[in-house]
Amino acid sequence: MVPRYARPPMSAIWEPEARYRIWFEIEAHATEKLGELGVVPKSAAKALWDWWATDPKIDVPAIDAIEAVTKHDVIAFLTWVAEQVGDEARFMHQGMTSSDVLDTTLAVQLARASDILLEDLDLLLAAIRRRAEEHKYTPTIGRSHGIHAEPVTFGLKLAQAYAEFARCRKRLVAAREEIATCAISGAVGTFANVDPAVEEHVAERLGLAIEPISTQVIPRDRHAMFFATLAVIAGSIERVAVEVRHLQRTEVLEAEEYFSPGQKGSSAMPHKRNPILTENLTGQARMIRAYALPALENVALWHERDISHSSVERFIGPDATITLDFALARLTGVIDKLLVYPERMQKNLDRMGGLVHSQRVLLALTQAGVSRENAYAIVQRNAMKVWESDGELALLDLLKQDAEVTAALSEAELEEKFDLEYHFRQVDQVFERVFD
Amino acid sequence: MVPRYARPPMSAIWEPEARYRIWFEIEAHATEKLGELGVVPKSAAKALWDWWATDPKIDVPAIDAIEAVTKHDVIAFLTWVAEQVGDEARFMHQGMTSSDVLDTTLAVQLARASDILLEDLDLLLAAIRRRAEEHKYTPTIGRSHGIHAEPVTFGLKLAQAYAEFARCRKRLVAAREEIATCAISGAVGTFANVDPAVEEHVAERLGLAIEPISTQVIPRDRHAMFFATLAVIAGSIERVAVEVRHLQRTEVLEAEEYFSPGQKGSSAMPHKRNPILTENLTGQARMIRAYALPALENVALWHERDISHSSVERFIGPDATITLDFALARLTGVIDKLLVYPERMQKNLDRMGGLVHSQRVLLALTQAGVSRENAYAIVQRNAMKVWESDGELALLDLLKQDAEVTAALSEAELEEKFDLEYHFRQVDQVFERVFD
Amino acid sequence: MVPRYARPPMSAIWEPEARYRIWFEIEAHATEKLGELGVVPKSAAKALWDWWATDPKIDVPAIDAIEAVTKHDVIAFLTWVAEQVGDEARFMHQGMTSSDVLDTTLAVQLARASDILLEDLDLLLAAIRRRAEEHKYTPTIGRSHGIHAEPVTFGLKLAQAYAEFARCRKRLVAAREEIATCAISGAVGTFANVDPAVEEHVAERLGLAIEPISTQVIPRDRHAMFFATLAVIAGSIERVAVEVRHLQRTEVLEAEEYFSPGQKGSSAMPHKRNPILTENLTGQARMIRAYALPALENVALWHERDISHSSVERFIGPDATITLDFALARLTGVIDKLLVYPERMQKNLDRMGGLVHSQRVLLALTQAGVSRENAYAIVQRNAMKVWESDGELALLDLLKQDAEVTAALSEAELEEKFDLEYHFRQVDQVFERVFD
Amino acid sequence: MVPRYARPPMSAIWEPEARYRIWFEIEAHATEKLGELGVVPKSAAKALWDWWATDPKIDVPAIDAIEAVTKHDVIAFLTWVAEQVGDEARFMHQGMTSSDVLDTTLAVQLARASDILLEDLDLLLAAIRRRAEEHKYTPTIGRSHGIHAEPVTFGLKLAQAYAEFARCRKRLVAAREEIATCAISGAVGTFANVDPAVEEHVAERLGLAIEPISTQVIPRDRHAMFFATLAVIAGSIERVAVEVRHLQRTEVLEAEEYFSPGQKGSSAMPHKRNPILTENLTGQARMIRAYALPALENVALWHERDISHSSVERFIGPDATITLDFALARLTGVIDKLLVYPERMQKNLDRMGGLVHSQRVLLALTQAGVSRENAYAIVQRNAMKVWESDGELALLDLLKQDAEVTAALSEAELEEKFDLEYHFRQVDQVFERVFD
Repeated sequence: MVPRYARPPMSAIWEPEARYRIWFEIEAHATEKLGELGVVPKSAAKALWDWWATDPKIDVPAIDAIEAVTKHDVIAFLTWVAEQVGDEARFMHQGMTSSDVLDTTLAVQLARASDILLEDLDLLLAAIRRRAEEHKYTPTIGRSHGIHAEPVTFGLKLAQAYAEFARCRKRLVAAREEIATCAISGAVGTFANVDPAVEEHVAERLGLAIEPISTQVIPRDRHAMFFATLAVIAGSIERVAVEVRHLQRTEVLEAEEYFSPGQKGSSAMPHKRNPILTENLTGQARMIRAYALPALENVALWHERDISHSSVERFIGPDATITLDFALARLTGVIDKLLVYPERMQKNLDRMGGLVHSQRVLLALTQAGVSRENAYAIVQRNAMKVWESDGELALLDLLKQDAEVTAALSEAELEEKFDLEYHFRQVDQVFERVFD
Repeated sequence: MVPRYARPPMSAIWEPEARYRIWFEIEAHATEKLGELGVVPKSAAKALWDWWATDPKIDVPAIDAIEAVTKHDVIAFLTWVAEQVGDEARFMHQGMTSSDVLDTTLAVQLARASDILLEDLDLLLAAIRRRAEEHKYTPTIGRSHGIHAEPVTFGLKLAQAYAEFARCRKRLVAAREEIATCAISGAVGTFANVDPAVEEHVAERLGLAIEPISTQVIPRDRHAMFFATLAVIAGSIERVAVEVRHLQRTEVLEAEEYFSPGQKGSSAMPHKRNPILTENLTGQARMIRAYALPALENVALWHERDISHSSVERFIGPDATITLDFALARLTGVIDKLLVYPERMQKNLDRMGGLVHSQRVLLALTQAGVSRENAYAIVQRNAMKVWESDGELALLDLLKQDAEVTAALSEAELEEKFDLEYHFRQVDQVFERVFD
Repeated sequence: MVPRYARPPMSAIWEPEARYRIWFEIEAHATEKLGELGVVPKSAAKALWDWWATDPKIDVPAIDAIEAVTKHDVIAFLTWVAEQVGDEARFMHQGMTSSDVLDTTLAVQLARASDILLEDLDLLLAAIRRRAEEHKYTPTIGRSHGIHAEPVTFGLKLAQAYAEFARCRKRLVAAREEIATCAISGAVGTFANVDPAVEEHVAERLGLAIEPISTQVIPRDRHAMFFATLAVIAGSIERVAVEVRHLQRTEVLEAEEYFSPGQKGSSAMPHKRNPILTENLTGQARMIRAYALPALENVALWHERDISHSSVERFIGPDATITLDFALARLTGVIDKLLVYPERMQKNLDRMGGLVHSQRVLLALTQAGVSRENAYAIVQRNAMKVWESDGELALLDLLKQDAEVTAALSEAELEEKFDLEYHFRQVDQVFERVFD
Repeated sequence: MVPRYARPPMSAIWEPEARYRIWFEIEAHATEKLGELGVVPKSAAKALWDWWATDPKIDVPAIDAIEAVTKHDVIAFLTWVAEQVGDEARFMHQGMTSSDVLDTTLAVQLARASDILLEDLDLLLAAIRRRAEEHKYTPTIGRSHGIHAEPVTFGLKLAQAYAEFARCRKRLVAAREEIATCAISGAVGTFANVDPAVEEHVAERLGLAIEPISTQVIPRDRHAMFFATLAVIAGSIERVAVEVRHLQRTEVLEAEEYFSPGQKGSSAMPHKRNPILTENLTGQARMIRAYALPALENVALWHERDISHSSVERFIGPDATITLDFALARLTGVIDKLLVYPERMQKNLDRMGGLVHSQRVLLALTQAGVSRENAYAIVQRNAMKVWESDGELALLDLLKQDAEVTAALSEAELEEKFDLEYHFRQVDQVFERVFD
């Protein structure tokens, strides 16, 4: 975790205090059910919840001090709680194993992290949608291979991003569902010393599903799927980040990351405004992708469990969720405040002298009875002049002066072929598909 | 693709002929709709389908020869079809762009590949279930960290695998849905020269969803999610493969990959039966995981598209699906024919001299009024002797001879604590959770 | 392996015939030494080499047919050789294990593959150097963050690529050394039934080092390092490929992948020349990077060996080397024939109206006694006008008309600050560092 | 970075204070040379070093406070230094760009990190060597595929690890050399405003090589190679960790991670000593491998530089080096204190009833004139009985009672075939290869 790429609510999920709070809730809910089942006195859970109702501070250093002696984190915590609650606390954890607490806690943390990420995505989607509608009909050149192709609108670019992040949202909902399970099944998952009803009760109270079958641990294919999903989302962040970086290039300059009016460029050169936020996002995307790999390797634990996944999760649990939260919020800011330059878009669109319309002229000539070969030659000879002029000549002007063209097409017909609007007739329908 | 790890039906999907057949269907369905819309004569589609009804052979070398001249694969194919069908074929591909055909074809191929993989998973699930039920109550030691923990049943191990692959199946269904979209939207996705109705028609005929918004290409976050899902499935294959490899170790030998009765070991040593199938699967899992990475990097294409994804997909499209198909089938065979040795499982269970039951004795002593500290000391001193005997002594025997134990617990009570069945009381419920 | 990305000499290394030829040489050299040691008759090696001198065809299908019966590749091969050579052949393979042959063969294949890759790198370096010298002083704008920064020369860009690939070459030499070892040490590497002198002899004849300690297999950290090195080289290929893709963008167009004079663009639009070779290389780089991952996972084999590395290497051995060979050759072609447009470079350099020189003016004003704050304000107000004119105004013109500037600096002094050559004074020294 | 997996000396390299100290040294050395060159007064460097000689505390919060205003880390630092040193400090940084400082600092940090890692490796190698010599002739079974193969010694296992980490050390030396370069070349690497002699001077003082050609940044192929090398080392750590985990399995138990005499197992069960250190190392190895990936993606920066590498390096710079340092030290501790059980090794060796020697008997029978087919049948029928007895019968006993055997071989000859020492005749030579 890099502090500058961390936001407090997400970081808080991964702090010791938050973890201990979840531990307590799991233990207290479990004790409650054990009481109902007659395994422990009902008074035990009451004592726990009564203490909890006082909103006690979790004394992390005190717990750490106990752990230094017991060498066992869960026992240290239980000991500390017992010191606070008194004798009734000894009924906690009956028949349970440490992993019951640890794995269910990780599930709660990842579910909460998912909830923040889902909010992040909602904010991002809202920002993209607002800007998409704003620029629904702002013409800009579509590029394949980095080369001008045919006109699109800037709104379409954003609608594509919207559709992509809407898919990401759906994937994250599924990933959250994968991860949000509760296991309280004992040392090797047989419920030998703890009734499955305890698991059901705790799951229901924590808003988790029960883990149908666990083996001391919750199976790690769930976590692999979760982190792989975050990696896919990172890829989509990178795509939009790369788009902004391209648009901000000196020669393109169709959009820019926001800078405040009074802000100075990096030097005396006023043009030096760098797309540092989206470059930064590009790097973060690389990290979030990388974190999926050890999660995938974690699946093949030995027999009922080995603990090799644990050190991995101490890294990627916080690092992947905190970084993705930061990245989504940063991207939302970039989109929200993106400086868009429609005039420059138009200027770039025009820099080819209308060559982007040559295909429609070709078709029109053919339909007007010129042979395909002739039509091609006619268009080509004019297009070449435009191309060689590097933006000085305009294709429409040349065509109007070409006798073979004017013999087949009227000036009005010709001009119609250079109509940008022609390309945007389906924008409405596409927006309906995406936003409805 | 490594031929020895390829099965014909999956490989066939990726062969040139299969690709050309899909191309034809896309073009013919599109022409059909263009006919309905009055853009081209209705006779065009009829001519195409009439020819198709003759079940024509796709002459791949002839198409290749044309491509060598035109330097364009789709044009080469259209030219060859025109040669077969005649004049009406010139109406094909109206307003479409090559990527419309290529990307929709990839969608069909990946959807078909998914269908095979889903069948593979069904067969694997059936095999696992059969063996799980067979060994529902076969006792075996549960191990955490590779160390004996408490008893489980071999059926539970398999039930866990079943639950895991059932999740994989659900993930693959979602991944198939992600990937099965149709885009026929023209050069930059604006439908400038092709009505969206054509896309809808082709999608419906091919069993695909429409791509709500495309940009010459279908967005690559879909493919990233698809290949990431295959990577997760590979992880689960590896988990089961590693389990079998462990079980077949000389010192464990609780199960073995099948070998036929007359089969010789690798030399004069009859014990030399190696788990080569599951070792092989372990390596294949590594490959399938690796293929997800370039798919994740493919997401961030430049602007409306660049073609960097294409070379990647020429590798991973076939390689990931063919290898996963092979691996799933191989794993099914391993499970189906796995030699299971319940006697050896029992022997291993017993090799600790009953130490796996020490915890229950400890609890019983405490409940019988012995202080926790005393109880621990009593169990510990007997357990240590058992441990140091390396399997020669039995804990139950020693406890029966320990006066402090017999003062608290009757022989019958003691024996009950060594009851394996105690651990299996919830097996039924777990099986219900998993298989119902 | 994707056939279209494969070149015959590299592919040949991975074909069955080549593999069998290496097998034979290993066995024959070993038999030779066994003869010298008196373990087998000296006549055995003579018989083998005599047959080999007849340049016999390796009958792959015949060997396959035997393998179908014996289920063992090395035995099948030995059997076939015995059929050809006669009785003396029975002395082959004495005391050896299959892995001795297989692993040493892989070493030979990877060493040969390295030799081809080293030649590829030499050709690439030569091409880069030639173009670097050609454009040593061709001015072009240096860009950070995609934004114009200060002038460089196109030769410097290429010199950087040269230095990078020279490092890659050095790394590959080291990787080749890592991988080129010979192990003939028997079933678990103890030389129990084969004298170490045999290993030494075979190693020397095949141009390999001896593996100091093997365990049936050559340790896989060597292979991990090898494939990781290929991955680094792929990264450098991608860097240059991305540079070319950027330079070919419509708005930049400072260089282009070669197209023949008569070649048509992709349609009627003559500007549509896409950087498809470098896009293709970008995707290939992703694959070569991905292949390093399973090689890294292969290191941790179980005990003296497990065979999980084998299926991985059947993929990545050919795929990584064949694809890298193809990519290096393709990049060499791109560089060799790259169309470079110095006029466009100059035009882009000038599009900022001389803003790239503003920093030098600022310094000159300060040195002429203007306070730093004033100097900044003076430059800034002129620079802003230039910036807002989008290339219409020139900074030098404005400065010459600014009284506060002319009070401090003469026209000649001002013009000197706009001298491009100032930036190139150290080009010679940098070239010396890189190329000498 | 996970605090529990961090050791202070390595962490210190990555703390702000350490970074600022390196920044100062770079600036002061550069100012020194600028003074010699007459660009700035010689008194400037003197003032800087005089202040430095007072061993001043770096006031990180004060620098942070300035950065909060200037929004630029290097300027904030220079401002703070100027406040301490006074007027002469204004000559610092002349003609330099921030990246000159940042990239050279990263080089110093990675070089220092490498030095710690090299020491770690030296300690690890020493520990392995000591244990290897201790167990040079301790017999143990060699296993391929997890199945008993032929005898080795435990010293050989460790010698293999020694040879592997000796290779890792050599690789790290090369990686350190890759990374330890100094770049002070200005905004786009042209040395436009700073003489190359400054770079040479700073490089020499910091013990770095000069970067032959930089482009504002040091090229990232160097860093890719560095982190890829750490990934390879992680693979070797995992290999040894997995070996220990296997050896500690309940059924194998040939070695164990150290536990203190009084230490309690995890519960009442004294056998429950888990290999948690090596499981932990396995997970850490996954992380270190994962960090190589974004480093590989960082190579392809845009043009003269983009800043996407920066966020990646804020993660992996500390995380990869700190974790690897911790892992190497932990592994050293594991090896150093490893509990080795030669009796259990012998017991496991014997559990096959001598089947591991069957191949030698087969050969001896053949050499004594028995046909190969007969010899095989004789050995096989006895071996099968041994195998089926699951360790109860011994092959040697049965052979001595087999008339066909005793007809060919004397009892003494037979016994010689069961001589473990036979397998260890080359141990000396292998040790010489590895350790000399």
